[in-house]
Amino acid sequence: MKNYEIMQKDLKYNWHPCTQMKDHEFLPLIPIKKGEGVYLEDFEGNKYIDAISSWWVNLFGHKNPYINKKIKEQLETLEHVIFAGFTHEGAVKLGERICKLTNFDKVFYADNGSSAVEIAIKMSFHFWKNNGLIRPLFFSLENSYHGETIGALSVGDVGLYKDTYKEILIKNITIPIPKDKSVEEAKKALKKAREVFERYHQNVSALIIEPLVQCAGYMKMHHPIFVKGLRELCNEFNVHLIADEIAVGFGRTGSMFACNQANVKPDFMTLSKGLTGGYLPLSLVLTTNKIYQAFYCDYKELKAFLHSHSYTANPLAIAAANATLDIFEKGKFKNEILFYDEEGESIIEHNKKTSNYIWEKMQRFKDLKNVKEIRQTGMISAIEMIDYPFEKRMGLKVYEYGLKNGVLLRPLGNVIYFMPPYIIKKEEIDKMINVAFEAIKSLE
Amino acid sequence: MKNYEIMQKDLKYNWHPCTQMKDHEFLPLIPIKKGEGVYLEDFEGNKYIDAISSWWVNLFGHKNPYINKKIKEQLETLEHVIFAGFTHEGAVKLGERICKLTNFDKVFYADNGSSAVEIAIKMSFHFWKNNGLIRPLFFSLENSYHGETIGALSVGDVGLYKDTYKEILIKNITIPIPKDKSVEEAKKALKKAREVFERYHQNVSALIIEPLVQCAGYMKMHHPIFVKGLRELCNEFNVHLIADEIAVGFGRTGSMFACNQANVKPDFMTLSKGLTGGYLPLSLVLTTNKIYQAFYCDYKELKAFLHSHSYTANPLAIAAANATLDIFEKGKFKNEILFYDEEGESIIEHNKKTSNYIWEKMQRFKDLKNVKEIRQTGMISAIEMIDYPFEKRMGLKVYEYGLKNGVLLRPLGNVIYFMPPYIIKKEEIDKMINVAFEAIKSLE
Repeated sequence: MKNYEIMQKDLKYNWHPCTQMKDHEFLPLIPIKKGEGVYLEDFEGNKYIDAISSWWVNLFGHKNPYINKKIKEQLETLEHVIFAGFTHEGAVKLGERICKLTNFDKVFYADNGSSAVEIAIKMSFHFWKNNGLIRPLFFSLENSYHGETIGALSVGDVGLYKDTYKEILIKNITIPIPKDKSVEEAKKALKKAREVFERYHQNVSALIIEPLVQCAGYMKMHHPIFVKGLRELCNEFNVHLIADEIAVGFGRTGSMFACNQANVKPDFMTLSKGLTGGYLPLSLVLTTNKIYQAFYCDYKELKAFLHSHSYTANPLAIAAANATLDIFEKGKFKNEILFYDEEGESIIEHNKKTSNYIWEKMQRFKDLKNVKEIRQTGMISAIEMIDYPFEKRMGLKVYEYGLKNGVLLRPLGNVIYFMPPYIIKKEEIDKMINVAFEAIKSLE
Repeated sequence: MKNYEIMQKDLKYNWHPCTQMKDHEFLPLIPIKKGEGVYLEDFEGNKYIDAISSWWVNLFGHKNPYINKKIKEQLETLEHVIFAGFTHEGAVKLGERICKLTNFDKVFYADNGSSAVEIAIKMSFHFWKNNGLIRPLFFSLENSYHGETIGALSVGDVGLYKDTYKEILIKNITIPIPKDKSVEEAKKALKKAREVFERYHQNVSALIIEPLVQCAGYMKMHHPIFVKGLRELCNEFNVHLIADEIAVGFGRTGSMFACNQANVKPDFMTLSKGLTGGYLPLSLVLTTNKIYQAFYCDYKELKAFLHSHSYTANPLAIAAANATLDIFEKGKFKNEILFYDEEGESIIEHNKKTSNYIWEKMQRFKDLKNVKEIRQTGMISAIEMIDYPFEKRMGLKVYEYGLKNGVLLRPLGNVIYFMPPYIIKKEEIDKMINVAFEAIKSLE
């Protein structure tokens, strides 16, 4: 079968996420036959550089031989077991290494990012309740995105996803964000944040943030001192800090976790996406012994955290996560190729070089009249076009141009961004950037 | 390493779902080394019959050779691709066959049951909004359970999971349930349901139900005419019906889906758990063209359903789901063994025999003084003990007795239930039931 036939068959039954399905009357829905490295290949042999890591999940390439091997090994012993009252080797291993890596004490498991956010919110609220306080509000940041289940959506602020549902969301309080990455704007925003804290803190369980980059929020970036200042406000006003590192964790921002750059330890951290190297849904909520102890008591006191999902700590997804952490530990780049048992640059070192290279190549976007700003934080790079009205759908035009020229870009409104797998090579970066450049130029 | 050492290592870092962690000061947390068929095996060689299908997910046994093979094949082509703007062969196949199997038109994907419930709720609310109506309330049943993210928890009614969070939940209206499986009680409950519909329907988007069995709600069961009557009320008052078949779907109640027995077509159906044969997290929301069309319009009208999860329609999980449906289509039992290319009994036929056998063997529980009722719906069988006060934790005593004797039972309060994989054999059933019998008897 060719692309078109498969697309028609798909559109008859499948309803796609984050999509106005009528768009596919003119926009091709691309059926992918296979993936390898940074490339996705359709049923007609066209290849696309996955410049967005398939929604920011893939780190070490499609069909990664090492992760494949580890999942196959897991299939030979245990595909799944209930995680209440039971455990398995992979979870014991992952629990220990993720706590040591993040400097947290305890890990709670779920399947996707939204669920992890829901858990962090509930755990924070429940902590205060177990301590005799009712704090039904949450602080979150202007322009934030934390997922789209009711709780996660409630602490988000992207109108496109949220406004429709306002009558069925729970209440949260929004804190203004810095206008840009500068120290000055961070300080201004912190001043405003203080006012909000002063006014509401007594009824607030936690502040949830995406440290350094608000990815779904049009790749807006802020200085690490903003994160540091928010941590200080949380300390001062006795409010938990939840760092949602679902999109920014695992080396994406230049350090292993975004909070590292602000030298901040949150009370909760949520992880997902890159956690399994882009293979399988799995998410984690990390927290401290202080939180854990508030739930630890005799059963009859009814203070336990009884949240659950059927596939909690699924052994196959955990095998992918452990394999991903193995690569972070043992993987070395040598002449742009990732090896597992050789000398070379660490992943983080290599990412620094890669992002420097991308940044250098991106400078020429400044010459385009329809580009307002370029910005970068580690392996996240963004080009913001001028404020085209949303009905013009300029981003969509860039998307179409990209696909026709072998690059999967998926702009957010007027913002084009690069968030490729870490194994991308210079020549692939050149192509990715050239195609984006020509696409934006064609709109001038 | 032996069980105890692994348990200690686990308890240092992992926080388990639905668990008062302090219980593990006296209750062993069992580390599972491998699974095969109905058995789980720990690190000291003890085997346990998985009488609860690892939280109701496993259908055709642990380490199922056919599902293993299909996941391995998928690993060789495509582990994952973004599902917005893209598709893949497995999703095209699953979309078509699940719609045909359920008689629905469209399928939307997520990762776990809670997320599917959140999607169904949002989609129903959004449908009415796209039609100019604001209907912020939901109907749900007394004693219901639909998951534990904020939206899903809001439409649930099990106090143990819900009460703590009441200040951060959205509003729902509860409809009384029948006292037992009889037609009379169903009729009485429908009469009360009518009163609730009459009073609130204008502000209500949907009624969500678990058809036939409220699994987490202590395995309470009702007659199919209750489901039929609720569908009629939904029609009369123009409210959507969401059938949550996450736990009861895929042959669990004796028919492929529980709604089949009531001859009811809901507006939305949520599926998960058994969907992947117990392998990987994946969930679906099925709906009709009527619903779909309310979202289908020009992008700029902003009526699209923009919900998304990173791993939507993950190809590996879908490979497991397609393999599971293959087994339903081609699998035949012959002398209690499941074959893929032989003549024999279909899965559903075999399940009927199995559940009849279980029911027959369960009769002797009636002789126990501390048993109040036994009940069964297809492959779900429950024994309700007398109303021991919750602090006595009699269920936990049955759980401990089960583990010591090689059977994983996981009572819900005073209710002991059997929900084994469909491949369980008569001699395994005998053991499962004998152990449960002795456990309950020991409490007399």
